[in-house]
Amino acid sequence: MVQWDDKVTLKNPILVEGLPGVGNVGKLAADYLKDTLKATRFATLHSKLLPPQVYVNEEGLIRLVSHELHYYRARGGTQRDLIILVGDYQGSTYEGQYELTDKVLEIASKMGAKECFTLAGFAQGHLVQAPRVLGAATSHERIEAMKKLGVVFSRKDPGGGLLGASGLFLGLGKLYGMESVCLMGETSGYFVDPRSAEAVLKVLGKALHVEIDLTALESKAQEIDQIAQRFREMETRPTPTSEAKEDLTYIG
Amino acid sequence: MVQWDDKVTLKNPILVEGLPGVGNVGKLAADYLKDTLKATRFATLHSKLLPPQVYVNEEGLIRLVSHELHYYRARGGTQRDLIILVGDYQGSTYEGQYELTDKVLEIASKMGAKECFTLAGFAQGHLVQAPRVLGAATSHERIEAMKKLGVVFSRKDPGGGLLGASGLFLGLGKLYGMESVCLMGETSGYFVDPRSAEAVLKVLGKALHVEIDLTALESKAQEIDQIAQRFREMETRPTPTSEAKEDLTYIG
Amino acid sequence: MVQWDDKVTLKNPILVEGLPGVGNVGKLAADYLKDTLKATRFATLHSKLLPPQVYVNEEGLIRLVSHELHYYRARGGTQRDLIILVGDYQGSTYEGQYELTDKVLEIASKMGAKECFTLAGFAQGHLVQAPRVLGAATSHERIEAMKKLGVVFSRKDPGGGLLGASGLFLGLGKLYGMESVCLMGETSGYFVDPRSAEAVLKVLGKALHVEIDLTALESKAQEIDQIAQRFREMETRPTPTSEAKEDLTYIG
Amino acid sequence: MVQWDDKVTLKNPILVEGLPGVGNVGKLAADYLKDTLKATRFATLHSKLLPPQVYVNEEGLIRLVSHELHYYRARGGTQRDLIILVGDYQGSTYEGQYELTDKVLEIASKMGAKECFTLAGFAQGHLVQAPRVLGAATSHERIEAMKKLGVVFSRKDPGGGLLGASGLFLGLGKLYGMESVCLMGETSGYFVDPRSAEAVLKVLGKALHVEIDLTALESKAQEIDQIAQRFREMETRPTPTSEAKEDLTYIG
Repeated sequence: MVQWDDKVTLKNPILVEGLPGVGNVGKLAADYLKDTLKATRFATLHSKLLPPQVYVNEEGLIRLVSHELHYYRARGGTQRDLIILVGDYQGSTYEGQYELTDKVLEIASKMGAKECFTLAGFAQGHLVQAPRVLGAATSHERIEAMKKLGVVFSRKDPGGGLLGASGLFLGLGKLYGMESVCLMGETSGYFVDPRSAEAVLKVLGKALHVEIDLTALESKAQEIDQIAQRFREMETRPTPTSEAKEDLTYIG
Repeated sequence: MVQWDDKVTLKNPILVEGLPGVGNVGKLAADYLKDTLKATRFATLHSKLLPPQVYVNEEGLIRLVSHELHYYRARGGTQRDLIILVGDYQGSTYEGQYELTDKVLEIASKMGAKECFTLAGFAQGHLVQAPRVLGAATSHERIEAMKKLGVVFSRKDPGGGLLGASGLFLGLGKLYGMESVCLMGETSGYFVDPRSAEAVLKVLGKALHVEIDLTALESKAQEIDQIAQRFREMETRPTPTSEAKEDLTYIG
Repeated sequence: MVQWDDKVTLKNPILVEGLPGVGNVGKLAADYLKDTLKATRFATLHSKLLPPQVYVNEEGLIRLVSHELHYYRARGGTQRDLIILVGDYQGSTYEGQYELTDKVLEIASKMGAKECFTLAGFAQGHLVQAPRVLGAATSHERIEAMKKLGVVFSRKDPGGGLLGASGLFLGLGKLYGMESVCLMGETSGYFVDPRSAEAVLKVLGKALHVEIDLTALESKAQEIDQIAQRFREMETRPTPTSEAKEDLTYIG
Repeated sequence: MVQWDDKVTLKNPILVEGLPGVGNVGKLAADYLKDTLKATRFATLHSKLLPPQVYVNEEGLIRLVSHELHYYRARGGTQRDLIILVGDYQGSTYEGQYELTDKVLEIASKMGAKECFTLAGFAQGHLVQAPRVLGAATSHERIEAMKKLGVVFSRKDPGGGLLGASGLFLGLGKLYGMESVCLMGETSGYFVDPRSAEAVLKVLGKALHVEIDLTALESKAQEIDQIAQRFREMETRPTPTSEAKEDLTYIG
């Protein structure tokens, strides 16, 4: 069920995906990118492959969960048109993930997209003070290009597989002839992580030649830094009391 | 699998939905409305999206679980024709919920329905003596109209999302051009709650300009009130013993 | 995926269903009926709605799990042709149960079946020495006819709903214009129960005017009776020791 | 979604299947066979019936999970052309297992395959020093032929059913007129078991008249043997301390 706001024509656009996942890094980054670039929504996907859920805003107005596609037109010589995918959920089932990803790739591909960036978090299972951006890609060329922007392609991380939309866009995208990069901000995995989203957006801004004002994200990141700091202090105390332990659980 | 009892023609009908859910408030209210208004069943939906279950009545006759559509013809100037959806279950899976809701909306829409009320319970997690009716809606106009009938649109409740049929009818209904309101009776969430259904029906009666004799529901509500009262007394005792605790669990 | 052994023409046949379930009563009874009447298989259903499983016999030969349809031709004036459904599993999912039941009903209906008996167990949660046969049916006529054969239509049992194939054949069968009876042998629910299957077959034999030699089933039943007897002795001992309790679990 | 590398024509080929499962025996064996015989990939199956997952290699290149079909051309008079199925996962759901197996059988059948070997592990629940190869098959002829190669068709093992791809290829294969054998290497079920895969490959090599150099697998097997040895020593100690028990769990 695709609802079109507008039939837009883009020139050689790049698809950028950021859906909920580990530390919500991908969603935070893609939502922020879309807002900062003042991208325009052109299509909304409702689907039985998403949960049967509506959100209610402060006034009492509802909104059915969805995937949204926004576009951004290049404003300078080195910029490129962008299609930005944001959404409330990944597909509810394995099959749903495939079908939704395939639907978006089909739309983006018809609009001329031959490149894709997917944004995600990578759970390290411990606090990360200066999150690196790890990468995975569909070609050696992409890997080399990303290394120059500081992306880490490590033998160790991610060791093995990526489950979910950010990996699937790369894998299925190849069947559409799309070359793609997954940018994964390191994160503890314990809480929503704007610091990690910030790291991802710094790389993405360079890759897309767009300037992303990170001020608003930075203030969110500082809030979370404080929570992380308390977390860290507790970790390093000799023996946490049982109350402290409960506190930790609460933060998590 | 839709079985038609009767092909009825209605004039500008309003769809009213009440399926099982939190405190069974929606189902209690819609079933009661249908019975009180002596609405007539015109269609039965059997579906593989419902559980493979039959009910057996006291005589031994079976009935396959279903959704039923009933109609009520307006009896006065300010009244409107009604389509009332009642049923035994919501869809068994997320996809099933979408498909069943979509099917009902398709039918109601073809019959001319452009408005919908969904009835539900809202779990507060604690006993509620005088349940308020909380609202969510698809337009500012509906919100304002409902506020005049005493419906509460609070910043706090429901904080976030509604999962299930009552929300989905609003969300998917919008795609059918339907304007809708969800009426949620506050309830503890601990037991079936006719008191909350009563509160919902009081608002709904005003909204639909129909008189609903609540006598029968009131007597059910008083029974539950007594159970709730015992529950409350236990909660306020200094320190419950372990036996009392087990008792509480039993009531729940 | 229906494999036909034989395209048979039957005269006004009755469908008899018995699939695995509570105490395996339905399966025991239907398998026994088929064997005793020397019914002939005429169709095998393989389906992705069943588990992806093969059985291996003592020689090492495999057999894919399936539903099988057997026929029996009436041998006397009061007898009727029979279609007997036996199988290894009920459908793996709710949707699968609907689809498989619908498929069998479609086949049986095309062959002229307008009546159906489903065989099942009814779990009482305690040992049952002389299992009654409880009933549920699609019409008052069937209920009265069954009462004459000793079937119990009680206000209390089954209180509420029947989940699974035996109920679904009744419910979906009605949409095929089929009149049906579910015969439920009381059983503890703790183990496979040939005693209960025997009770069901006694009623069924009378209803179908076929003689069913129960000797082989009786000897199985006596084995289980002995286990049940030990179980009962343990239940009535003053306070079971922890070892005895483990023993009980083991029997269960 | 089948991607063809090459449209190959084979002569009376035999299908060999080895997917992940108990002790990963089937996958180890099929992957090793493919590598040793230097088989050539001719088709890749991507499917929404597999998990939505990509693997990332050491360089950072991704690969979407898949099933791969490889071919090997007979190099001598007694050899036969082979189609080897390897893959990352079995289907995610019961239905998915049926659909994927059916797809592969359809392809192999169109290429002329009328015989199939499936490779699997059989979990014994205890350490197995000299794993036997157990068998199951679709015909007496296959059973007799396999017995001559040392395959054990025991009354006891496998007692009952085989769940998953290796059994399903036999069962569904019969519907394609394919005669098949399942070779199951005994394994503890506690860890990945190259020793068991080795046993399976020894039999398979004889059955297919191909020479399989087992050197590389043997060195892997020896590593695991050492772990198994430590495991065994712990099992035979008088009473393991609680730390030792945790250690066992860790190894498992």
